[in-house]
Amino acid sequence: MAVVEGGFKALDEKSLIEYIRTTPVLSSLLGNDPEDLTIKEVGDGNLNFVYIVTSPSGGSFVIKQAVPYIRCIGESWPMTKERAYYEALTLKEHGRLCPAHVPEVYHFDRPLSLIAMCYLKPPHIILRKGLIVGIEYPLLAEHLSEYMARTLFFTSLLYHSTTDHKREVAEYCGNVDLCRLTEQVVFSDPYKVSQYNHWTSPYLDDDAEAIREDDELKVEVAGLKSMFCERAQALIHGDLHTGSIMVTTESTQVIDPEFAFYGPMGFDIGALLGNLILAFFSQDGHAGNEIDRDAYKQWILKTIEDIWNFFYRKFISFWNEHKNGKGEAYLFDIYKKPELWLLVQKKYMKDLFHDSLGFGAAKMIRRIVGVAHVEDFESITDAKRRAYCEHRALEFAKLLLKERRRFNTIEEIIVAIKESP
Amino acid sequence: MAVVEGGFKALDEKSLIEYIRTTPVLSSLLGNDPEDLTIKEVGDGNLNFVYIVTSPSGGSFVIKQAVPYIRCIGESWPMTKERAYYEALTLKEHGRLCPAHVPEVYHFDRPLSLIAMCYLKPPHIILRKGLIVGIEYPLLAEHLSEYMARTLFFTSLLYHSTTDHKREVAEYCGNVDLCRLTEQVVFSDPYKVSQYNHWTSPYLDDDAEAIREDDELKVEVAGLKSMFCERAQALIHGDLHTGSIMVTTESTQVIDPEFAFYGPMGFDIGALLGNLILAFFSQDGHAGNEIDRDAYKQWILKTIEDIWNFFYRKFISFWNEHKNGKGEAYLFDIYKKPELWLLVQKKYMKDLFHDSLGFGAAKMIRRIVGVAHVEDFESITDAKRRAYCEHRALEFAKLLLKERRRFNTIEEIIVAIKESP
Ligand SMILES: Nc1ncnc2c1ncn2[C@@H]1O[C@H](COP(=O)(O)OP(=O)(O)O)[C@@H](O)[C@H]1O
Ligand SMILES: Nc1ncnc2c1ncn2[C@@H]1O[C@H](COP(=O)(O)OP(=O)(O)O)[C@@H](O)[C@H]1O
Ligand SMILES: [Mg+2]
Ligand SMILES: [Mg+2]
Ligand SMILES: [Mg+2]
Ligand SMILES: [Mg+2]
Ligand SMILES: [Mg+2]
Repeated sequence: MAVVEGGFKALDEKSLIEYIRTTPVLSSLLGNDPEDLTIKEVGDGNLNFVYIVTSPSGGSFVIKQAVPYIRCIGESWPMTKERAYYEALTLKEHGRLCPAHVPEVYHFDRPLSLIAMCYLKPPHIILRKGLIVGIEYPLLAEHLSEYMARTLFFTSLLYHSTTDHKREVAEYCGNVDLCRLTEQVVFSDPYKVSQYNHWTSPYLDDDAEAIREDDELKVEVAGLKSMFCERAQALIHGDLHTGSIMVTTESTQVIDPEFAFYGPMGFDIGALLGNLILAFFSQDGHAGNEIDRDAYKQWILKTIEDIWNFFYRKFISFWNEHKNGKGEAYLFDIYKKPELWLLVQKKYMKDLFHDSLGFGAAKMIRRIVGVAHVEDFESITDAKRRAYCEHRALEFAKLLLKERRRFNTIEEIIVAIKESP
Repeated sequence: MAVVEGGFKALDEKSLIEYIRTTPVLSSLLGNDPEDLTIKEVGDGNLNFVYIVTSPSGGSFVIKQAVPYIRCIGESWPMTKERAYYEALTLKEHGRLCPAHVPEVYHFDRPLSLIAMCYLKPPHIILRKGLIVGIEYPLLAEHLSEYMARTLFFTSLLYHSTTDHKREVAEYCGNVDLCRLTEQVVFSDPYKVSQYNHWTSPYLDDDAEAIREDDELKVEVAGLKSMFCERAQALIHGDLHTGSIMVTTESTQVIDPEFAFYGPMGFDIGALLGNLILAFFSQDGHAGNEIDRDAYKQWILKTIEDIWNFFYRKFISFWNEHKNGKGEAYLFDIYKKPELWLLVQKKYMKDLFHDSLGFGAAKMIRRIVGVAHVEDFESITDAKRRAYCEHRALEFAKLLLKERRRFNTIEEIIVAIKESP
């Protein structure tokens, strides 16, 4: 049944056909042949409805519609459908900055909270699913470091004038409800008793309690939460886990930036690294008699290492390239002495590294003891084995969150992951 | 001559009388007796025009009008007159939070960028002038700590919900041109060659150059500048020096928040402490045969000490009082264990202390080698003697900026000031 409210109407397959027929930009994408459309709802995400639309003539697109609640919970957890506006805005802006890794937006209908975008055809699959079955993506680190370096650098004050920056910051303040959701599910609920929290019980009951009782951990989380709420460093994706990335061995596409806002860069980098570390710790749950995951674990670690190192190199190279631009943060005139230029860049990247490790760790923790878990672990059917993998990931995340400042390079992180008990 | 542009008209004494006559809220404040008004332009600030309006019946108010340029430089440095909008908004908001120390706004005319507010009658004078002549204000620390604790606490995420916070942050993003001015004159120009910089030459030529060549200092300044640009911690006054405060021995009133925006709290606290430290170092330039400033220097130091300590106590007490409110940053449910509660508060205040010292030092430096100097030093007519005072202040500011993290209490700062060579 369609919900109608202020011009909004939740579409179903039938009303979607009618919508496409009467929307020229969409029907023309299908060769004006909207009679024999195939429509398939594929939304496996947490929040929205996603339809793949294809026509016999070969035309296709994806329709994503936000509804005024959280899909996986139901109408009992209302959530503004205006998130679709910020998603469309960000797909366009990140797409402008990095067209190779962001699907093109064809159409946005604000009253309907509906986005039509490029259909990422098979063999594109969600990266998380590829990681679970053990597929190597040789270009993944190259592509994702490029995406992050471009989207983060070019929306930061290293490139923006203050005027451009504040205008964009103000615009994205409107996506506050999605920020609040993150504040709650990432930075608050896992550290207190909350009705939505769950974990692999009874095995992790003590682990969950230990997190709620870990003062040092909670002090660190408070610092990260304040940074998330206060620091408008760049236009971040806001939900950059391995379920927001679609891949083939040649292509890497970032979808689903509905949580986007001006926040700390480390939140995106950390989301990605943290979810790859979760993938790493889940591998022992997938290894079996026939499949040995040792080589694959090495590939994941190498990918983590490359993502940061490639990101670092690309980000610095954009910075050098635009050192005489209108970016307000480090005026070249002040910092041009070569050793000083190197020094401020090193410091910037060191702080960003530590932010990323902190946010990454927080994202790991919330996926194990919070409301929304990850398929990497959920697909391990044996609960005891799953709990073992989760426990190791949790211990590593706690260490990372508390001691991140003593790590100087991503290689040291890789060593720590390998040595984790 | 009046400049007319989009409903704007720079008023003079004559057109101001006409304006008052035709604006009921104003004429009624004067007992509807606008015939024998006395109008006196008293603007001694850098940016705007200020008129004191009094009537024979005893009614009075102050009219402040922004013009579309920086008054002390002239029309060659344009500056949005919309600053008056943010000043009025902030006078009202800070006035609501701390009515005892903010003059009441009677009327705001946006097209004219004109604010009518309470006239702070004699013996109110600008605090900076009182500090120059050596007047003690026994309630100053009490009042200013109250003003800062109230305005900063109640506009931070310790009190605000995220929703309230982001709405306000977005609104104040519009005051970007004033933020840009601060970025330039506080965080950039003093650290490079700039046409507007000046200093007591030739005595401080080497000092000015040393600042431009001090890599460690410039790294620290970059961090503070980014914090200023990115961190929406609270609604700060943005220009809280001793020239933005009017005082009598009983009353303390904060005026001129045209630079207000959501920024780091330490910028306000630092502006105040830094300007008091400047006042301290200027005293030796005012001391003479007849006047001994030793006792007065002690009073300034005690005031600095009290401001921070009283602020600390009041801020923490607001935090405790509202621990169960809608403030998003530290949910009581997570941090309620008494020793943890103390720990997070201590950490928060320690970080704020270090931010304040850093910003305070930056504000000191810019007043000695940047575009806008302070009367504390400018009124020392003997250039060599002035340079000596400025040099000591500059050396202390550099130390503070670079080594602020090794200071744990304000008492340690006082000792360092006293021991400064
Ligand atoms: N452009 C696209 N091309 C192909 N499949 C897509 C596309 N966008 C989304 N999907 C599919 O829909 C699923 C849910 O999309 P997503 O944007 O993540 O929605 P949610 O916001 O609900 O998480 C994805 O996991 C993916 O399988
Ligand atoms: N409400 C007031 N009552 C009395 N005098 C005032 C008042 N507001 C401003 N003044 C006088 O006008 C001067 C300039 O005001 P200010 O608001 O600081 O302007 P500017 O923004 O140009 O610095 C102050 O230094 C003070 O002497
Ligand atoms: Mg998704
Ligand atoms: Mg593309
Ligand atoms: Mg989503
Ligand atoms: Mg002023
Ligand atoms: Mg002013």
